[in-house]
Amino acid sequence: MDILSSISSPADVRALDRQRLDELCAEIRAFLIENVAKTGGHLASNLGVVELTLAIHRVYDTSKDRVVFDVGHQCYVHKLLTGRMDAFPTLRCIGGLSGYPKPSESIHDAAVAGHASSSISVALGMARARTIMHEDYSVAALIGDGAMTGGLAFEGMCSCAASGEPMVIILNDNGMAIDGNVGGMASLLSKLHLKPKYIDFKRRYRKTVGKIEPLYNFNHSIKEWFKKRLLPHSMFEDMGFMYLGPVDGHDIIQLEAVLAWAKEQNRPTLVHVVTQKGRGYSFAEDNPEVYHGVDAFDSDTGINMGEHKCFSCAMGDDLCELAENDKNICAITAAMCSGTGLNKFAERFGDRFFDVGITEGNAVAMAAGMAKQGLVPVFAVYSTFLQRSYDMLIHDVSLSHLHVVLAVDRAGIVGRDGATHQGVFDVAYLSSVPNMTILCPSSYAELKDMLGFAVYGVSGPVAVRYPRGTEGEYKASAGTAPACVIREGADITLVTYGIMLNNVLEAARILEDKGISSEIIKLNLINPLDCDTVLISAVKTGRLLTVEDVCARGGVGMRLLAAAAAQGVALKGSAALNLGEGIVPHGSAAELERLCGIDARSIADTAFSLIEGKADV
Amino acid sequence: MDILSSISSPADVRALDRQRLDELCAEIRAFLIENVAKTGGHLASNLGVVELTLAIHRVYDTSKDRVVFDVGHQCYVHKLLTGRMDAFPTLRCIGGLSGYPKPSESIHDAAVAGHASSSISVALGMARARTIMHEDYSVAALIGDGAMTGGLAFEGMCSCAASGEPMVIILNDNGMAIDGNVGGMASLLSKLHLKPKYIDFKRRYRKTVGKIEPLYNFNHSIKEWFKKRLLPHSMFEDMGFMYLGPVDGHDIIQLEAVLAWAKEQNRPTLVHVVTQKGRGYSFAEDNPEVYHGVDAFDSDTGINMGEHKCFSCAMGDDLCELAENDKNICAITAAMCSGTGLNKFAERFGDRFFDVGITEGNAVAMAAGMAKQGLVPVFAVYSTFLQRSYDMLIHDVSLSHLHVVLAVDRAGIVGRDGATHQGVFDVAYLSSVPNMTILCPSSYAELKDMLGFAVYGVSGPVAVRYPRGTEGEYKASAGTAPACVIREGADITLVTYGIMLNNVLEAARILEDKGISSEIIKLNLINPLDCDTVLISAVKTGRLLTVEDVCARGGVGMRLLAAAAAQGVALKGSAALNLGEGIVPHGSAAELERLCGIDARSIADTAFSLIEGKADV
Repeated sequence: MDILSSISSPADVRALDRQRLDELCAEIRAFLIENVAKTGGHLASNLGVVELTLAIHRVYDTSKDRVVFDVGHQCYVHKLLTGRMDAFPTLRCIGGLSGYPKPSESIHDAAVAGHASSSISVALGMARARTIMHEDYSVAALIGDGAMTGGLAFEGMCSCAASGEPMVIILNDNGMAIDGNVGGMASLLSKLHLKPKYIDFKRRYRKTVGKIEPLYNFNHSIKEWFKKRLLPHSMFEDMGFMYLGPVDGHDIIQLEAVLAWAKEQNRPTLVHVVTQKGRGYSFAEDNPEVYHGVDAFDSDTGINMGEHKCFSCAMGDDLCELAENDKNICAITAAMCSGTGLNKFAERFGDRFFDVGITEGNAVAMAAGMAKQGLVPVFAVYSTFLQRSYDMLIHDVSLSHLHVVLAVDRAGIVGRDGATHQGVFDVAYLSSVPNMTILCPSSYAELKDMLGFAVYGVSGPVAVRYPRGTEGEYKASAGTAPACVIREGADITLVTYGIMLNNVLEAARILEDKGISSEIIKLNLINPLDCDTVLISAVKTGRLLTVEDVCARGGVGMRLLAAAAAQGVALKGSAALNLGEGIVPHGSAAELERLCGIDARSIADTAFSLIEGKADV
Repeated sequence: MDILSSISSPADVRALDRQRLDELCAEIRAFLIENVAKTGGHLASNLGVVELTLAIHRVYDTSKDRVVFDVGHQCYVHKLLTGRMDAFPTLRCIGGLSGYPKPSESIHDAAVAGHASSSISVALGMARARTIMHEDYSVAALIGDGAMTGGLAFEGMCSCAASGEPMVIILNDNGMAIDGNVGGMASLLSKLHLKPKYIDFKRRYRKTVGKIEPLYNFNHSIKEWFKKRLLPHSMFEDMGFMYLGPVDGHDIIQLEAVLAWAKEQNRPTLVHVVTQKGRGYSFAEDNPEVYHGVDAFDSDTGINMGEHKCFSCAMGDDLCELAENDKNICAITAAMCSGTGLNKFAERFGDRFFDVGITEGNAVAMAAGMAKQGLVPVFAVYSTFLQRSYDMLIHDVSLSHLHVVLAVDRAGIVGRDGATHQGVFDVAYLSSVPNMTILCPSSYAELKDMLGFAVYGVSGPVAVRYPRGTEGEYKASAGTAPACVIREGADITLVTYGIMLNNVLEAARILEDKGISSEIIKLNLINPLDCDTVLISAVKTGRLLTVEDVCARGGVGMRLLAAAAAQGVALKGSAALNLGEGIVPHGSAAELERLCGIDARSIADTAFSLIEGKADV
């Protein structure tokens, strides 16, 4: 790590002798593999952009120029080169280095990222600001081919092309989204891969005649003609971009030259870079999707490919069982086949499995069409990404009361991916969708029962929300009644749903040790909400404490307290525990629960203070 | 109207002699102009698709085949031809004909529509269902060039191309979205307009050799070569579509032939139809955007172009005033320049005005970039369309605490456009966005004060929400304190915000006549929410009634009642008036308020029942 440890800022990268760049790349890869094996994180995508990130830092001054990372999990090399090497042992740990770009962490991070496809629009906004405010800096967006499939990226591309703003879009094309790229954009890009060495011609041409203005202008039309001969026609040029590429994303000299040239252009320019995901680590090269986002592993032997039971794979298994007996059940994913546990479904029912790429809005609207004509579409999607489909859930699904099933994965606190990925808004936004049924399993057994209920027991839109990771101590099934008392008690009513039940059960034991008897109500459905069962219990115990791992507003706690007020139920004490505004940083789930006051100890403390008469909100 | 009145179903259209079609078109246009002048509605777009709709009905059997209208305001001709002619006098009236496709109204309406760009995804879902369920019907989507600029349409296009599903996308290209088309897609489409008469060649070619299979196959490669010579290269073909067009959208014979051929193709096919918005009515041809959506008018003289004061134009004027003195203020619209009152801004500050087309997600992400670099972007957008930006509001704006100003127009009940357009979810979804400030002016004077406050008095994301139409009796300004008591009383506390204040003031007078003294609290901000002012009053009067024109869940009523419960405020009676699940049909705003129980009389009745002890929720 001789060279890498000598880099304390991007200026050192720019000062580095070209001959030593390849060596630095090797050091960076070794560092990444060693560190991510210890901390977990995103590996394959970062191994793919080592040369590209170096080239970016040799061309752009990220302390002033704005380089917007799309999705952002490919920012590790960038963080390494911008003075954050020492913080890597704390990657994704509470209080430590974020796994995503974070402006509050460094001036070199231009924008928050975590979701796909927004970088072009954000960068365009920055370029417009630069121009309107007569400032002098360059703007670029770095976006993968997976994110480019998103409609938001297309919207950004159209706006960018029409703007004429000088800015560069760097398309990092590794020929796959997380689970392989799907759709028309992929087919467009693959055609461009066939192109001959146009860049070489361009560089030589410019070197020769570029500085002699009249000659340059005179030759321009010839150049254009020549370009058309060499380049397959490009959609990007039709839109109004200057298109450069494809460039070998592991040839740092060529990369630097093309980026430097692109930066000088006085118009929207797209640089198409072809990279290999997982580059330089054979395990990751062979299985890039396995090494996309990883937990800690042994770097010498690679990741243990054995099966780990979790809510996602439980859902996948349950859905296979249902689909086995019902030919109308279909599964949809937005580029998250393995993440949502649909691998087996995809293998067994290939003709009823649809990976639509990173297009959550399209997935929901398509599901609406399928449901209208008699299929039972199940869209498995992370809570945080389903935010993209809010309008389609209302407009295309709910207003027609269509039976679309949402398998809402990663609901609640997701942990180390941090603020951009926490699934803490779904209860609020799904509850506002007219007639949406929302089921909240607390165990694998309940997931199975509730998925079946969602498919056969519900009409209209229905969501089953379940957390990232594994079930806890609670492994039973309480069925699909809206609410049930799973522990009787006299002093306080604790109400919760989903995985939080484990913390509440533990809190009840802590309270029991203090001589306090808790009644626990478990909500199987939070929409419709069985207020009566809760209020009958609250009247009995005189105190009501709700616990949920989502943001306060639109949460169940607020609804239950409002029901108590509306029905004139007088309580000796009541409070709603939740995640407040809903911005939850990165860290382990257990740490974050403590931080947010929804771990067993905090729940017990709050309950105790209600009983002692020190009620809080 | 001889022919038109003889058409009772699409079968009559199919049976009609070709020679009489032009005559029928003229009758339809006369009928549309006469009727829409009386009822108001969407005129220009429907005048543009008369021939196209006739052709669709001669090729597709919409009782079985699925033709999905995008946006849907261009469905009048379709409704005329599918047995709903007699209902036109009730168009957009309560209980009458909807101005948009509505499956519950007719089997011929394949899907609910109102928002842009979802038709391709919905139709693809239907095509997939057809194939999986081994059924036999055809599927088509009818989408305008404006809606085609939306990212969701692009996502649908990519999925559709990759699917290989036999289905047809009919691109109705009138060269403009509502306010003129902006961006790269528009430039792509305009290139296609230059193309020579390829269709003619195709028809003749097919007629000659199409029925002789070996000859057809043998000639296929020649045909492909020939096609490449005649057609400018098309993005749609690169994506995997068969591309047919452009076709003259007012040549019904040609349209029918191309559509019939497209329907027979066993793959995703795009038919590019060029139409003229407002066709056949000179006023509308000259000013298609003025005749896009209209109130009743005199069909002989056209619409009175005089200025009408409304919240939208008040916002536009106020923003001009602010921008006059602050060069960093920018305005953004998503193809709704005139609708959101930004015409003057666009004229006066052209370099700081951005129409991004129908791309609400892009608008918000772009605003994030602008705000990050020091500008003050103001995105003026209808409440219902901002639903598309929910994720970007959280991910790109809120997590970075960026000062993006949302001018949320058409908030609350919008009236005649109906369920797809009601602005009744914004309080729920905006409240769940972390640290979003939400201001609710009740008058033009307050809008002015609050817009200024949003620009200069708030950091982070901020929304100013105001209704469609004009201010009511209340014309004062209560400033920008979070809440204020604007009428003191003893018997009940009435809490409201925005335009609903007028109904509440009226209700207070009705109650006064019954000898009941109401205290009225007007919320200027609903986020942050000043619960204390409300609860102090509620403690004093003993009763709390909240009134809002949005859906119940995530509403202010629920939050205030929850705060009362959490703080142990014992009330003799309380209730929250709102729009329940939030599905509100079409009709005049006043009628809908009555229907939903939030008009002055209903408010007074509910208040009275609380006081009489007949509390309700």
